[in-house]
Amino acid sequence: MTTPYSPEITSHAEVISVLKTLSFFKDMPQAAFVHFAAKAHIHEDQKGKVVFLHGDNAACFYVVINGWIKLFRDAIDGTEAVFDMISVGHICGETSIFNDNIHTYSAEIVEDASYIALPTSLLSYYIDKEKTMAMNMMEYMAKQQQVQSRDLEHSNIQHAPQRIGCFLLRLCPDAADGEITLSLPYSKLLIASRIGMKPETFSRALSILKQATGLTVKGGQVVIPDITVLKNYTCLHCSQHVPCAET
Amino acid sequence: MTTPYSPEITSHAEVISVLKTLSFFKDMPQAAFVHFAAKAHIHEDQKGKVVFLHGDNAACFYVVINGWIKLFRDAIDGTEAVFDMISVGHICGETSIFNDNIHTYSAEIVEDASYIALPTSLLSYYIDKEKTMAMNMMEYMAKQQQVQSRDLEHSNIQHAPQRIGCFLLRLCPDAADGEITLSLPYSKLLIASRIGMKPETFSRALSILKQATGLTVKGGQVVIPDITVLKNYTCLHCSQHVPCAET
Repeated sequence: MTTPYSPEITSHAEVISVLKTLSFFKDMPQAAFVHFAAKAHIHEDQKGKVVFLHGDNAACFYVVINGWIKLFRDAIDGTEAVFDMISVGHICGETSIFNDNIHTYSAEIVEDASYIALPTSLLSYYIDKEKTMAMNMMEYMAKQQQVQSRDLEHSNIQHAPQRIGCFLLRLCPDAADGEITLSLPYSKLLIASRIGMKPETFSRALSILKQATGLTVKGGQVVIPDITVLKNYTCLHCSQHVPCAET
Repeated sequence: MTTPYSPEITSHAEVISVLKTLSFFKDMPQAAFVHFAAKAHIHEDQKGKVVFLHGDNAACFYVVINGWIKLFRDAIDGTEAVFDMISVGHICGETSIFNDNIHTYSAEIVEDASYIALPTSLLSYYIDKEKTMAMNMMEYMAKQQQVQSRDLEHSNIQHAPQRIGCFLLRLCPDAADGEITLSLPYSKLLIASRIGMKPETFSRALSILKQATGLTVKGGQVVIPDITVLKNYTCLHCSQHVPCAET
């Protein structure tokens, strides 16, 4: 169920204030914000809604306001490969402008989400017109490239319990110390997909992680008794500094 | 052992002709090619030579003319995570311009290589000055992002024998049909690293792949008796079309 807001001034102002928080739109002239906001549609969708499919014509790209969106592709045999899960402040569908305006992956809401749809044609226009937009886009892509290469690094050298540990650590506040309680952002099944594990591997790995670090999981609540113990267990098999720069 | 060519006109012309083959420099004005060539150094290095290290000041980025360069990071415990292996026509070190001119990974020659070093300052200059350079950079980054997300997809959903199958298929010519003989580009140990497997996993997976598809390996020579059989075995767990667009 999609409920586009009416394109009245309040919603314009909201869109502008959201866009102004994003590095993707850093230092853009006010006129550009007004232009994007005039063409924006705000959506509020429930879990299960497909935002776009791999191969779709990419009329829009999307800025997430809240909730979670899964980015994935389907293999020929139907297996789903999740390669990212994005939330507030993240963007998807933007690189379609370098792929003949065709989406190179699929996006689906996995936790009820609000997001802003903006025309890809306007993005192409401003990349061409405003050097700032092109620089922002390149910086965003460079950052994405680093995040993806860290994910690849982890899937190559971390063992399964460490990959779960890393996922949990990245949910902790930067300055976290001692005991931490946190809520899982989405289901364990989705966490398993996100970090590239079969559900049964995830369960076994989580048991090992619990034994090794003393953490406990009840429903969607995780208690980490000592974050330093978890870091020592997890971050040895990583090239990043702790606390790590995050996506 | 590094042997920079003398910066005489022949070498300038050579550099220009190499750069003109790259999409990264597509449609750039002749003056820009001359400018890059004037500041270029051609290197010929042997296996084992470190091109740059993670954290190094990035004075240059590099275009590979031949041979193979491994891109990797070292985890805190010394484990090496290889996330790419690049050859002719590929570039490395270029995204450092978006990371305060610091390299975000390490690069090392793994098969004797020739490559051109070009100043990152000149890249930044042309990205600022020529819209074409900025567009080329963005297109290159978008392509890299697709390749990385395919690698992530594979590490998430393909089983180990399929990942070796995929590696081999990408060495085959696009229109290949029937029986194919090919040479491995570098050692099996490095192939294992590149696709994120421990050597023992690689050996076991290769045995399974041989049994399933009839392929044989002798030294660095691989004989694939029927490429269609290998594709059927491998490409089910992939979202790409066959033959797949390549890195």
